[in-house]
Amino acid sequence: MDFHENPRLPEGFRCAARHCGIKASGLDLSLFASDTPAHAAALFTRNHFPGAPVLVGRERIRGRRLQAVIANSKISNVATGEGGVEDARRMGLLAARELGIPEELVLMSSTGVIGERLPMEKLERGILGLASELGDDPWPAARGIMTTDTEPKVLSVEVGGATLTAVGKGAGMIAPNMATMLVFLFTDAELPAPRLDELLRRASRKSFECLSVDSDTSTSDTVAILANGRIGPVEPEPFGSALDAICLRMSEWVARDGEGATKLLRVRVVGAADDPEGRRVARSVVDSPLVKTMVYGGDPNVGRILMAIGKCVECRIVADRVEARVQGVPVVVGGVRVPYDEARVRGLLAEDTIEIDISLGVGEGRGLGIGCDLTEGYIRENSAYASS
Amino acid sequence: MDFHENPRLPEGFRCAARHCGIKASGLDLSLFASDTPAHAAALFTRNHFPGAPVLVGRERIRGRRLQAVIANSKISNVATGEGGVEDARRMGLLAARELGIPEELVLMSSTGVIGERLPMEKLERGILGLASELGDDPWPAARGIMTTDTEPKVLSVEVGGATLTAVGKGAGMIAPNMATMLVFLFTDAELPAPRLDELLRRASRKSFECLSVDSDTSTSDTVAILANGRIGPVEPEPFGSALDAICLRMSEWVARDGEGATKLLRVRVVGAADDPEGRRVARSVVDSPLVKTMVYGGDPNVGRILMAIGKCVECRIVADRVEARVQGVPVVVGGVRVPYDEARVRGLLAEDTIEIDISLGVGEGRGLGIGCDLTEGYIRENSAYASS
Repeated sequence: MDFHENPRLPEGFRCAARHCGIKASGLDLSLFASDTPAHAAALFTRNHFPGAPVLVGRERIRGRRLQAVIANSKISNVATGEGGVEDARRMGLLAARELGIPEELVLMSSTGVIGERLPMEKLERGILGLASELGDDPWPAARGIMTTDTEPKVLSVEVGGATLTAVGKGAGMIAPNMATMLVFLFTDAELPAPRLDELLRRASRKSFECLSVDSDTSTSDTVAILANGRIGPVEPEPFGSALDAICLRMSEWVARDGEGATKLLRVRVVGAADDPEGRRVARSVVDSPLVKTMVYGGDPNVGRILMAIGKCVECRIVADRVEARVQGVPVVVGGVRVPYDEARVRGLLAEDTIEIDISLGVGEGRGLGIGCDLTEGYIRENSAYASS
Repeated sequence: MDFHENPRLPEGFRCAARHCGIKASGLDLSLFASDTPAHAAALFTRNHFPGAPVLVGRERIRGRRLQAVIANSKISNVATGEGGVEDARRMGLLAARELGIPEELVLMSSTGVIGERLPMEKLERGILGLASELGDDPWPAARGIMTTDTEPKVLSVEVGGATLTAVGKGAGMIAPNMATMLVFLFTDAELPAPRLDELLRRASRKSFECLSVDSDTSTSDTVAILANGRIGPVEPEPFGSALDAICLRMSEWVARDGEGATKLLRVRVVGAADDPEGRRVARSVVDSPLVKTMVYGGDPNVGRILMAIGKCVECRIVADRVEARVQGVPVVVGGVRVPYDEARVRGLLAEDTIEIDISLGVGEGRGLGIGCDLTEGYIRENSAYASS
């Protein structure tokens, strides 16, 4: 899959961003809009404390159509009760009025600190006049949704004459069942909403649901796709493959830019009893603090990989069938650590993408884990990240 | 429960420790012995890659009698195949010969790096003559089993005229289903082995199984109790309470001395649908990297507590019934963050024991989580802790 070197928005989509004053400085408010209503699908966090925008978003996506996304960073509007839900609705209404569209076609997202109310006056002033600033450059709006991300994230790709673009943010509190990860996907292809929903779920299962920066699961996670049909119909299958690819690439980007991360960690499991067990083992390895610090330190410590596999006590694991490779080098055969060239493995662990391949030898199940190393940077960011 | 200010071994137990050369320096080999065979019970890790000493220990504990424990630190004898099992047996045999007792009465433990064979010549030289050094001071033997612990751990208590003593080590790779936590309990009380087993399981469920330093589960965890009966029979119930108390205190000591830890974190959940769900939620909060870094940073960030409760997607949680207190101060009522004196909470978070109390309001289930904060120290120790 060839991603554009200079990612762009699809036909009929524009966006804008402002500093409205929620952050002390920097862009903190983004608006994405289609010229016409779009078929839409969305997935939200499974956390029992979903943010107010998620609660309202779940209602709206039942209509299967969206035309705009309004998103702010720094305050997530979670655990704010009925007042928070009213704030979320009002934020959407302000964007709808600004664009002259029905409020039901606006999706809201908020990311940041939990438990604080949105500063509605600042948001109102921020949204007023924003429609007149809509343009083709996706980068400012990608910046407007950043929290502790170190860089904005936009990807785009061509498929069947249409463009598919993803704008995302991540950084921390990210684990399968999604993340304070926000990913908005836009395409000028025409696809019916049920098909969009099906393809989005499939792509998410193979990407965002494999992603874990720190095993914590945000209350605001949202992945949404808007298809405005400007280019006309496309074949679902090449489109689905493009969606799979862009979601996987975005997941890896989010992991690589995880809080404090210096390396991407990719764990592949084969030979599990079934796919759920394959995913469970991959997740255990990618989440293990001892594996993550080993990846950071760059020192091969094979025992930690075996420990992380073995602690999945509910999975069918037969110790003497387990094999493992680090950066392609066999380090465990028949459940036992085998001799390997330590200097070579240490050298391979200095690369910025680390791959651990595990074969369990008990079935046909597979699993993928996408994560990152655990560093002092994560501790610094999260012990200092103030609630106020 | 009053623990002895100067913990001591019970009647008829002695111990000794040596530097045999597995570590570059410091004690690395400990022997604990009873003058007579003792009734015994033991619990081992549920990790699918149990160490060789665990494999042999599981066999031996079926005999329900032990007379000695031989333990080394620095190499764990895990993932070493058949040869490792032979090494474990030989280590036990050497100790049995040294003590002049049957080898079936010796329990072996090894803790440290996974995937390396034990240096048997060093161990053999280390064990030779060790019996002549057996004495009453528990501290050197407690030092001999330390890995990244910062201090040796011994507790003792009187119960019904008998003494109950615990010698433990912990530090990292510690989570419920136990830990590379080794805890050896010795008593001069007389209790039948089945009763010992029952009381040990109960005590462990309320202590070691609630303990999580980093969510990783070691391949070497062992908790064993030896009762040599020198003082005669005791009532099981006050003894059971004493065992509960000493196991809980040892768990908290292990957590407080977790790798890089500066604070003990105690999470109590009530009102869960049932006890397993109560434990699941407590574990989620105590393991959450974002809660752990918040505890380290001492800044109240209530949203992280809600996030960690809410990510237990399989548990029955009704958001608007959830209440939470930090150091006794209500911070969440009806699932919503309530105003509280932030300066006061910040002050209370500076204490060295942090308590988070959660009420789920859906049932009668309870759970306890014992853990610690997550700091740069954990990262430093575990990114540098070399496999060789």
